[in-house]
Amino acid sequence: MNKKAKESLENLGKDLVKKILAKKPPILDVPIRSLSNVNYDEKTQTLQLGEKTSERNFFNVSHSKKFLQTLEVAAVSKGLIEDNKNTSLRDVFYMIKRTIPNTKTNIVDEQTESDSAIEDLEAITGLSRELLHINAKASGMVSGKVIIEDLGDSIDWSKMGSGGWAIPSNVENITFKKVDANYVLYMEKDAVWQRLHQDKFWEKNKCIIISSQGQTTRGIRRLLQRLSQEYKLPIYVLADFDPWGFYIYSVIKYGSINLAHMSNEMTLTEARFLGITAEDIENYDLKKHLIAFKEVDIKRIKQLQNYDWFKDHKGWQNQFKKMLAMKAKAEIQALSSRGLSFISEKYLPEKIKKGEYLE
Amino acid sequence: MNKKAKESLENLGKDLVKKILAKKPPILDVPIRSLSNVNYDEKTQTLQLGEKTSERNFFNVSHSKKFLQTLEVAAVSKGLIEDNKNTSLRDVFYMIKRTIPNTKTNIVDEQTESDSAIEDLEAITGLSRELLHINAKASGMVSGKVIIEDLGDSIDWSKMGSGGWAIPSNVENITFKKVDANYVLYMEKDAVWQRLHQDKFWEKNKCIIISSQGQTTRGIRRLLQRLSQEYKLPIYVLADFDPWGFYIYSVIKYGSINLAHMSNEMTLTEARFLGITAEDIENYDLKKHLIAFKEVDIKRIKQLQNYDWFKDHKGWQNQFKKMLAMKAKAEIQALSSRGLSFISEKYLPEKIKKGEYLE
Repeated sequence: MNKKAKESLENLGKDLVKKILAKKPPILDVPIRSLSNVNYDEKTQTLQLGEKTSERNFFNVSHSKKFLQTLEVAAVSKGLIEDNKNTSLRDVFYMIKRTIPNTKTNIVDEQTESDSAIEDLEAITGLSRELLHINAKASGMVSGKVIIEDLGDSIDWSKMGSGGWAIPSNVENITFKKVDANYVLYMEKDAVWQRLHQDKFWEKNKCIIISSQGQTTRGIRRLLQRLSQEYKLPIYVLADFDPWGFYIYSVIKYGSINLAHMSNEMTLTEARFLGITAEDIENYDLKKHLIAFKEVDIKRIKQLQNYDWFKDHKGWQNQFKKMLAMKAKAEIQALSSRGLSFISEKYLPEKIKKGEYLE
Repeated sequence: MNKKAKESLENLGKDLVKKILAKKPPILDVPIRSLSNVNYDEKTQTLQLGEKTSERNFFNVSHSKKFLQTLEVAAVSKGLIEDNKNTSLRDVFYMIKRTIPNTKTNIVDEQTESDSAIEDLEAITGLSRELLHINAKASGMVSGKVIIEDLGDSIDWSKMGSGGWAIPSNVENITFKKVDANYVLYMEKDAVWQRLHQDKFWEKNKCIIISSQGQTTRGIRRLLQRLSQEYKLPIYVLADFDPWGFYIYSVIKYGSINLAHMSNEMTLTEARFLGITAEDIENYDLKKHLIAFKEVDIKRIKQLQNYDWFKDHKGWQNQFKKMLAMKAKAEIQALSSRGLSFISEKYLPEKIKKGEYLE
């Protein structure tokens, strides 16, 4: 049991009780989580929540329901920590959903309400959802010459056959027993992971390969962060040459507005974008596989150009400019036109050896 | 290397060469894969492709491109089999995409064209995509007291910590070494799987738990089928009480129009729908967690009512009728309102013990 997390929730309750006993109104101070209170911090190179908070006063009719929701979620979380159980956002919704006696009012009607209360609780306590025992989606797989211990099991990521280890939503409690790798290669696309896994890329190149099979989950972000911090491994991001691929990297490295209150746990300031880059299109003869831009792509690139952390970054501005000039994007899989294992035998080893990445 | 698959593709080519040498036009006979040629087979209880085929004649201008695409895909597949490599649909698209010399015509312009050619090749040869070495999406995880062997690795599904074994897209070559289970429990929702896994449900109840983390992939369907056929394990499907939940079961058990040509490899005639059922709503006090129907739900239920395999099925018609009367659906997670581990400690053991399932 995480004593600190439990105590933090208990203190939240005790403070309110104190206020009540002193005949003061029970008020929660909730950090504001909207754009107006999110800033890019040059020093840590991450999006961070500012100092602004708003009062949530139980005696204010427009606050009382949200106040109650926040406390309900805190109570559920405390129970989860005590029982050493984890659950999902959807389950928390059902656990607190009920009608307040003698009224027609439900504590929550929609899951968005409990989700928002959980994010508030994260911001109030500084405890991540993982520490509050509320799971994010589990997704993704990993392989490499790594042995971990988890719930008493010893798990060898190099002995998973044609599959991998399915990454759980919460990786706070796994212990690394052996990490025999020079770097980590992360990609969203599971098809690329399957190719690299079948080619035993991780064995030949002494690395760890991770796919999220879609959007980067919190579990994977934490796993990448732990490998980066605890083993000083470079983390290479492999994504399409398109605005979305660039954005994936941006979120992993600098954080996002939604998760600004968790930036310290979730960002990876050491991440490197390996490709696909504008230069790759040239160097690896991918021009004929470019896919024409749509209006929305142009709009998206222009947004990226103005991000605080990209604004003065020569390397990235160069990518944006070249992409806008081409008016086209390209997928990682375009490399397959050069041969199925071109990516694992030539493209990746060459790029990593030459240090051709953006930081 | 799968010799039979390779030979089957070689014979396809040899037959065409024979025709050409005999100065006959090269023609492929392609089974028709549309609704007009899909029938419900009462005996096997699966959707099956009928006998209708269409000619694809290289000398017919409206056929020649598709003819070429089919042969290109066959050539790629033969190469994959020989090299013992697998690849994805997207990669096959890039592998065959090129401009025909001295023309402005590309062999394929869109992935839908190569996808369709691959499905045709499946239907022509009777070889599944897995045997053609073209991977479907990998997704999902499994745990239970099972030991498998895969690519020389021994993998123990009961020693995966808080994660599971990430199921690969192709499970044709895994070998079961030990299967200590009375049944298999399959669910789409990864949150439910995480709950059951954390409660060590598979250990306490001697079973295997599988989640697909979304739509049932081909890899998972084959895994379920193999466990059912090779170990005679009952397969229980756990899904929401809603038209989509029922449809998940329908596809697993009877097949789908898209995959009618692969029904023998993909359907699970022994599958059982465990819940959530209309009776569960009553018995487990879930009424207050019903979610009101939308128009589209009503339409969907009426379609299900008329499926050949449900039309005369009393049990299912009863579910449809009750759902239409309630005009509402319910999620598995509604069980969490009764307590977090209610599903693993009471609901599932009770239902399985009493044999409360639909077949």
